Amino acid sequence: MKNIKIGLFGFGCVGQGLYETLNNSKNFSGEIKKICIKNPDKARRLDPKLFTTQAASLLNDPEIDVIVELIDDADAALEIVTKALENGKSVVTANKKMVAEHLSELVNLQASTGQALLYEGAVCGSIPIIRTLEEYFGHEPLNEVKGIFNGSTNYILTKVFEENLSYEAALLQAQALGFAESDPTLDVKGFDAKYKLSILLTHAFGIHVAPNRIVNLGIDHLKASDLEYAREKRLSIKLIAQAKRIEDTVYAFVMPQFIKSDHTLTSVKNEFNAVIINGEFCDDQLFIGKGAGSLPTGAAVLSDISALSYNYRYEYKKHYNLGKLPFSNDSLLEVYVSFENPHEINLEDFESIQHKYFSFDHSYVIGKMCINNLLDEKWLNNPKNNIVLCAIGTENILGSLCVKGLNAEIEELKRGQQLLQKIIV
Amino acid sequence: MKNIKIGLFGFGCVGQGLYETLNNSKNFSGEIKKICIKNPDKARRLDPKLFTTQAASLLNDPEIDVIVELIDDADAALEIVTKALENGKSVVTANKKMVAEHLSELVNLQASTGQALLYEGAVCGSIPIIRTLEEYFGHEPLNEVKGIFNGSTNYILTKVFEENLSYEAALLQAQALGFAESDPTLDVKGFDAKYKLSILLTHAFGIHVAPNRIVNLGIDHLKASDLEYAREKRLSIKLIAQAKRIEDTVYAFVMPQFIKSDHTLTSVKNEFNAVIINGEFCDDQLFIGKGAGSLPTGAAVLSDISALSYNYRYEYKKHYNLGKLPFSNDSLLEVYVSFENPHEINLEDFESIQHKYFSFDHSYVIGKMCINNLLDEKWLNNPKNNIVLCAIGTENILGSLCVKGLNAEIEELKRGQQLLQKIIV
Repeated sequence: MKNIKIGLFGFGCVGQGLYETLNNSKNFSGEIKKICIKNPDKARRLDPKLFTTQAASLLNDPEIDVIVELIDDADAALEIVTKALENGKSVVTANKKMVAEHLSELVNLQASTGQALLYEGAVCGSIPIIRTLEEYFGHEPLNEVKGIFNGSTNYILTKVFEENLSYEAALLQAQALGFAESDPTLDVKGFDAKYKLSILLTHAFGIHVAPNRIVNLGIDHLKASDLEYAREKRLSIKLIAQAKRIEDTVYAFVMPQFIKSDHTLTSVKNEFNAVIINGEFCDDQLFIGKGAGSLPTGAAVLSDISALSYNYRYEYKKHYNLGKLPFSNDSLLEVYVSFENPHEINLEDFESIQHKYFSFDHSYVIGKMCINNLLDEKWLNNPKNNIVLCAIGTENILGSLCVKGLNAEIEELKRGQQLLQKIIV
Repeated sequence: MKNIKIGLFGFGCVGQGLYETLNNSKNFSGEIKKICIKNPDKARRLDPKLFTTQAASLLNDPEIDVIVELIDDADAALEIVTKALENGKSVVTANKKMVAEHLSELVNLQASTGQALLYEGAVCGSIPIIRTLEEYFGHEPLNEVKGIFNGSTNYILTKVFEENLSYEAALLQAQALGFAESDPTLDVKGFDAKYKLSILLTHAFGIHVAPNRIVNLGIDHLKASDLEYAREKRLSIKLIAQAKRIEDTVYAFVMPQFIKSDHTLTSVKNEFNAVIINGEFCDDQLFIGKGAGSLPTGAAVLSDISALSYNYRYEYKKHYNLGKLPFSNDSLLEVYVSFENPHEINLEDFESIQHKYFSFDHSYVIGKMCINNLLDEKWLNNPKNNIVLCAIGTENILGSLCVKGLNAEIEELKRGQQLLQKIIV
């Protein structure tokens, strides 16, 4: 193995984790030659000569073999990665947003430049999921990929459920521990998990789906009454990213889901992530590991750098060889929707309703809704309405097409809704 | 990818699974050219021209690129694998006994012939554990590798615990489902799990430990009273293979262990296997998947064949690069020992005793014992004594050296033992 010279962009949580793991690893010969940072005035514990603010001095240094990109800004990251590949350098990144939004062009760029781009650290921290999908499941038709893809929301839900912490207090804890992204809305609204899901769609099913086509509902609207509802039914709530192939169409979304107490995902706590793969040969395969944190993500980045030393690259077997599977949001999903004021909920968006419960402090309906509807602003992101939407367990994506139309039950419910509204007024 | 020509030895459960996965996989170009079998008279569902009883016709066929060895007999398997490597063919095997007992020479043989030997299917079925250890944890100092490595004993324990099936009925079910080895003692006495543990010691810690140096205690002596004891304390019993590095010494053994009800291993049921890795950077990392069965193991073998198509080989990074860690059995372990007759138990083998319970139908002691003692026949394999030995949870290998010596408590216990014996007589 040759002595790899690394040019590092960014020296935040993951960058420092990489530095740490690199200096404490065995059998790895490589060193960080230069670190490009934004703010030269910040106090740092390493030799100041190691740092620069000039990106070009790394990107144009012929001695540097590998560019490692670990900055927050997705646009700047894309620029760095593109330039590095074009300059004949291999690249390792952990920027999930950048990879998810530009994966198609990044695959082409790897092909045209002949250079490799690896990004294991971008998806589920220390879990080697991309390489496992690439190498181990490259030939196996997969049915489903799902799991807990975001460590900070899982940390928050664990604290809220097990220690009765308030949502706000749990979020502050997660941030203090370095689990949450610098902008916590990326975590709590499900964007972070969605970027990861979008990347895995490529490696699991061979399709690119732009993140804005994938529904993401977060945990920031969960109310005490929803937690109470879950506890009463001996369920937990987890933020689940899920992709499922049903009759050669792939459906995918990120949404809080009720999980039964004996389901393995229930035992995945705090900042741990989990990925479940269901394949035609292997059946269920589960991976659990720390999904966030300096060292676990740093170790994932280091394993990518090490893989470059033996010229490893993703083959994108399914992308290049499979007939592309269509992606669709046109499927029914069984959902729980809670709301404070009955007039806030649009029952006409349901295909059918199984349960309804109206009271002064906690109202909900459980019914079937088309995933497509959830892309609408009124469901996706309406804090005023305080609407909580949870999928009923992870088995309830139905694959049946949505046939818009009110049924008698919904008409009846609407009457009840109007009645309750009058009482409240 | 070139069209790989495969010469297959054995057409049992895994061989047929390979045939099935190979014919239903995507993007794989390869075919089984010939299958060498022992019994030509057995009815088979494939073209008889595909079969032969002549090993040489596969091993000497210049058109065959890869020999896949899936027979039961470890000695015959070694002969086939050796000959194939010497003849310039790559080899895939799932024979854990053969690999575990000859790994040192097989590593050398790969180096001297320049050919690759892959054996993912030998360890924990569909879980890609060897490749993950090789590629993903090649640079990370590991602290522990442990888990449920045997599907049929896990199936038996699940049925016994959850459905109150008798041990014998559960064993018959496991055999009928094809989970158990043809000789079930390999499963239920912990040999199968031990072979797998021995192989993982090489890939996780870079050391070869001959299987006969590793203690293996099975589940075949478990009595109803032991299950009752576990249930009362809300514990389950799992057969656990465990290797732990403590201050640069590695300890390893296979033994039934009590597992707390909220531990993730508790949710690993039936024929599923689990591997937990603890590393210095990634902390705990857990893999769960089907550890037995035709298709899951067939898929693991297929992924090895596929890896050969891009010249993949195990690098044995830790084996070649690390200062060898010493392996030792000289550590204390906290154990539960139950017995029917008080005179059957040799208290002098304990270093100290924490709990004792003597009654007419269920007696046990809990205390600290040196792993070394368990290599002795009287502990290892003494059906007459009906001694059950369980480790107390997976955290209780102590790493402290054994200092032989009776303490006052043991003297007192011996008096109690003699007293009870008189009462019984």
